[in-house]
Amino acid sequence: MATTSVTSGFWRDRLDLNRSVSMPAVLKTFEDTGRVRALTGDLRPGEAPHMFWESDLAKWIEAAFIEVRQQPDAQLLQTAEEIFDKIIANQESDGYLNSYFSAGELENRFTNLRVRHELYCAGHLLEAALAHAQLKGESRFLEAMERYMDFIAAEFGPEPEKRQGYPGHQEIELALTKAYEQTGKAKFLELAHYFIDERGRDPKYFALEDDRLEEQIAGLNVDDRRGRYAEHAAAHSDSHGDRRARWNRDHSYAQAHARPVDQATAEGHSVRALYMYSAMADLARLRDDPEMLAACRTLWRNIVDRRMYVHGGLGSAHIGERFSFDYDLPNDMAYAETCASIALMFFAERLSRIERRSEYADIIERALYNTVLASTSRDGQAFFYDNYLECQPEFLRFQRRRRGVRDEYHSCSCCPPNVLRILADLGRYIFAEVPAGLEVHQFISGSRQLVRDGESITVTQTSDFPWKGKSRLDVHVSAGQRFTIFVRVPDWDPAMSIRVNGERYDYSLDGGYAVIDRDWQDGDRVDLAFDFTPRVVRSNPMVRYDVRRAAVFRGPLLYCLEAQDNFDNLNSIVLPDSATFEEQSDDTLAPGCIVLSAEAVALTSEDAALYTTARPTQKPVTVRFIPYFLWANRGENEMLVWVNQA
Amino acid sequence: MATTSVTSGFWRDRLDLNRSVSMPAVLKTFEDTGRVRALTGDLRPGEAPHMFWESDLAKWIEAAFIEVRQQPDAQLLQTAEEIFDKIIANQESDGYLNSYFSAGELENRFTNLRVRHELYCAGHLLEAALAHAQLKGESRFLEAMERYMDFIAAEFGPEPEKRQGYPGHQEIELALTKAYEQTGKAKFLELAHYFIDERGRDPKYFALEDDRLEEQIAGLNVDDRRGRYAEHAAAHSDSHGDRRARWNRDHSYAQAHARPVDQATAEGHSVRALYMYSAMADLARLRDDPEMLAACRTLWRNIVDRRMYVHGGLGSAHIGERFSFDYDLPNDMAYAETCASIALMFFAERLSRIERRSEYADIIERALYNTVLASTSRDGQAFFYDNYLECQPEFLRFQRRRRGVRDEYHSCSCCPPNVLRILADLGRYIFAEVPAGLEVHQFISGSRQLVRDGESITVTQTSDFPWKGKSRLDVHVSAGQRFTIFVRVPDWDPAMSIRVNGERYDYSLDGGYAVIDRDWQDGDRVDLAFDFTPRVVRSNPMVRYDVRRAAVFRGPLLYCLEAQDNFDNLNSIVLPDSATFEEQSDDTLAPGCIVLSAEAVALTSEDAALYTTARPTQKPVTVRFIPYFLWANRGENEMLVWVNQA
Repeated sequence: MATTSVTSGFWRDRLDLNRSVSMPAVLKTFEDTGRVRALTGDLRPGEAPHMFWESDLAKWIEAAFIEVRQQPDAQLLQTAEEIFDKIIANQESDGYLNSYFSAGELENRFTNLRVRHELYCAGHLLEAALAHAQLKGESRFLEAMERYMDFIAAEFGPEPEKRQGYPGHQEIELALTKAYEQTGKAKFLELAHYFIDERGRDPKYFALEDDRLEEQIAGLNVDDRRGRYAEHAAAHSDSHGDRRARWNRDHSYAQAHARPVDQATAEGHSVRALYMYSAMADLARLRDDPEMLAACRTLWRNIVDRRMYVHGGLGSAHIGERFSFDYDLPNDMAYAETCASIALMFFAERLSRIERRSEYADIIERALYNTVLASTSRDGQAFFYDNYLECQPEFLRFQRRRRGVRDEYHSCSCCPPNVLRILADLGRYIFAEVPAGLEVHQFISGSRQLVRDGESITVTQTSDFPWKGKSRLDVHVSAGQRFTIFVRVPDWDPAMSIRVNGERYDYSLDGGYAVIDRDWQDGDRVDLAFDFTPRVVRSNPMVRYDVRRAAVFRGPLLYCLEAQDNFDNLNSIVLPDSATFEEQSDDTLAPGCIVLSAEAVALTSEDAALYTTARPTQKPVTVRFIPYFLWANRGENEMLVWVNQA
Repeated sequence: MATTSVTSGFWRDRLDLNRSVSMPAVLKTFEDTGRVRALTGDLRPGEAPHMFWESDLAKWIEAAFIEVRQQPDAQLLQTAEEIFDKIIANQESDGYLNSYFSAGELENRFTNLRVRHELYCAGHLLEAALAHAQLKGESRFLEAMERYMDFIAAEFGPEPEKRQGYPGHQEIELALTKAYEQTGKAKFLELAHYFIDERGRDPKYFALEDDRLEEQIAGLNVDDRRGRYAEHAAAHSDSHGDRRARWNRDHSYAQAHARPVDQATAEGHSVRALYMYSAMADLARLRDDPEMLAACRTLWRNIVDRRMYVHGGLGSAHIGERFSFDYDLPNDMAYAETCASIALMFFAERLSRIERRSEYADIIERALYNTVLASTSRDGQAFFYDNYLECQPEFLRFQRRRRGVRDEYHSCSCCPPNVLRILADLGRYIFAEVPAGLEVHQFISGSRQLVRDGESITVTQTSDFPWKGKSRLDVHVSAGQRFTIFVRVPDWDPAMSIRVNGERYDYSLDGGYAVIDRDWQDGDRVDLAFDFTPRVVRSNPMVRYDVRRAAVFRGPLLYCLEAQDNFDNLNSIVLPDSATFEEQSDDTLAPGCIVLSAEAVALTSEDAALYTTARPTQKPVTVRFIPYFLWANRGENEMLVWVNQA
């Protein structure tokens, strides 16, 4: 399979950090907290295994295999394989594979799909095994996972003797479509389709499951019952604070309120939702299902037109880590989980495989450069789970929220290894080979080889993103060839200019991509130039939080204010109606970093009164914006994305 | 003791509703939920008593006794006395009185003061008993409560053989100062002083108590321990959602972080805080303690200059029902518990007894006409616990908050009976007799008798508040007398005009009160005229939530927008810089009600995009404001106090 290597520049540095610092840092937290020792029953006193732990390891292992495929590293490979060997050593003779259940309560396997994440773990393990097979060809891990998938296929399905169930946390569906594409085995696609097709049908599986659990508990003796009630209550607690009483059979939480094909709005837990939509997009493409594609497009529109933060974050409500409702995008109470933006990239990338529409790569760019990039600290060692658009640390403290400082470890560790693997796999998002030629989705330095009509073609991109609005494509062909390069015209610069071998190229558009259709000769060069003038973006006024506020972008990068560059109470700042920005280099913040300054006013009060009929005083100030992805790298302080504007 | 009767007009109607509808409605919820039956051990299967229940009943009983004192009602008196008789029937032979502990765990009395509210209940029962004694002279209830207070005084004190403790929820302190004033018995004042004086000293009592509880649990056998751990964990949960892990010995939650006399900022649970400050003000006055008075003034300034909502609400953080930090006044996440504004009235009224300063009565007016009045539905049957300044029902749903509809019953029922008793006692806030004469604090129709130099004086106020800015005082004297009437000049109308017997009266000011010092003759008449032109109030720009927003007032009444008078997304409305308001009558909303309309613009978007560099469209609209206290009487809908202003 052709892959893209990320060759140089900003992203190469970021990926090196990912590999050399973040990967070992995350693994260390996993080892320290017992995730690896749990696999061999070596937990220490006081440590308790958790049902999600294998998924955390699986994502780390997957990232390792992807990294090694790009750049061999025997030690990294060995570490990952050793952990995976420990995982598959727990496989039951019937193929079932989950060390948490095998260790303590095998009899309860698949009895609480809504909460207990077995199929979610299975999906991540399958993805990791697929990455291993890509690296090695033959893979004992993929063999083990195929046995597990066969076991799952024997357990779940429409046949009366099987369970008519589906995961509480989707993931396995997109892993199965990937397995089908990689192996060509139809059984994987069939199981993926079954899980999506069954979902949301009446009677609701999770309600039946719940009834069975209640009955089971009722049948226990009193002492056992007490324990099981506690466990059931815990099991009914959706992530982070939802109480049992609140579950109340809210099937939308896990997108089981309607058949996926009939869902029109993004509901419930945002990561579950986007993982499911990603699988739906795969199914639409692989099964050529127009109804499924229509549902994907409808869900996409609902997200990007009504439920997505300006930094590409998803999930407005921290309670339940979930979508809320149209235009509800609170900034200081935002959740915007890192994993949800990663999952948005998954969904967008899959849709872009179906149809050429630049919006998909636009959104990938938005999420990648802002939420995903911001989620990791500058030193690569700490991670955000929630990605606020406004941070007042004291306010967050009283709301019992994380206070705007990245943590090295999260007890629920889904996000850090997800960042590891999507960055390891970043090449996937730059180019796409299509029948007519090659699509250039992202302006990231990278090299892609393709073979057309038996001839080898290499397209190498050298990009100055994100600090400068220039990128260049060099085409190397073994013999002159006619094909098309489709270059995304980003939504933020519809007048993007193209030169081919120094000559201005008047392009036509196809799905938002500039079409460069020509006989390519070895050494041809395409220069792309973008307008990186800082621009002010406004929300639809339906977003009550952002009325009369502006977000500042430069190229793909969102900017923000931090108190330490300015002063406390950033909301007292009002940008003029026509704000102008001055660009300055600041290598102390990050190599090559461009910061912005602007003239504004700060509203202050002459007297101490809390309420007055007098107007506030306007004091001229110069304010300094930094790239959003770099915030919170200099200690806890106030931060603001949506700034008041006259 | 001289009292003021509320004679006619808006408040007479409101008080009649309080007595005829709200009092029986609240009692019914108490009876239905077992609060009365619990006293005689007659709870039904599935019902469990709660340690706060006696305080709920006590406030209802106190309200009943105050009502009966103003207007005899044998049935109401009998109902209240019967409940109180059931309460004191549980008194232990040693004087201890708490049916919750007597019924199940007398051995644990006074072992968990931080959480278990025994002394809080004791305080409310003492207040109810004092109201009975005011009504009847002799009172078996006051005798019983005096026995209980003697028992408490024998348990708590600086002597080594006593407990050096104090309540987790203050209340008893202000009840004790009231008992001292009413009975003249110094022991009550001494105990009140002890509880305040001991508070915050090191080592912290609550930490020692916590250690003892941990030790006690550790000494139990395993099965008992499990139960006690659960109970201890529950006991360590501060109200509504604070988990044990979060208590973490945060002594500021119950204002035990420092000695009260050294406290300078309003911290922790807002009701506990304000009850304590009220007792501190009493102690400052009754013990002539300048240090205590200085602390009260400092705390007052912190509250009114930095931590009070524009409607007089206190407590910004719903988690913990507490104060947060300076200028943190979120509108849609506000807590602003009804009880806290009632307690603010307590504190302000006590300070006004120490010094003539119109700000105290200004704040009473603000809280009374807005938060307190708003807390009850128009029909008198349902109550707010939280008092939002912005309501988006769907947002609140996802934040797990009450959705802006008053409830007929709250399982934690502190607020409804607190409203009952403060309205029953409203006369207290209108006038105050002072050595030089009479202060007029509130512009509420009412009549006050006083005796000076053996001569009877009656001052009767007839007010058109809150709908018209006129009020009139009629003075009846048995013989001509020289004395001063001090009339509050409200902060919102420093040019308030006064006519005496039709002649314009040029007044001087004393502490913000117009001084009318003259030889009063029978039949003298004072006319007060206020500017009720709607006015726009702005927050200090340090309040990040209210920057470039306006709150509209007319006289003492705060106004707000509701969606059903306007349209959804009230934040899209922008008032012009110089907004003008047209007044209209709307008797359908409330008899005599004045609503306001103003020309404004609504921001809308031409396209469906969520983010755009384009400016929104400004659509001219006429918007309609209603009095804040009347919101949420026509079903669930959006509401906004702080409206965008150009």
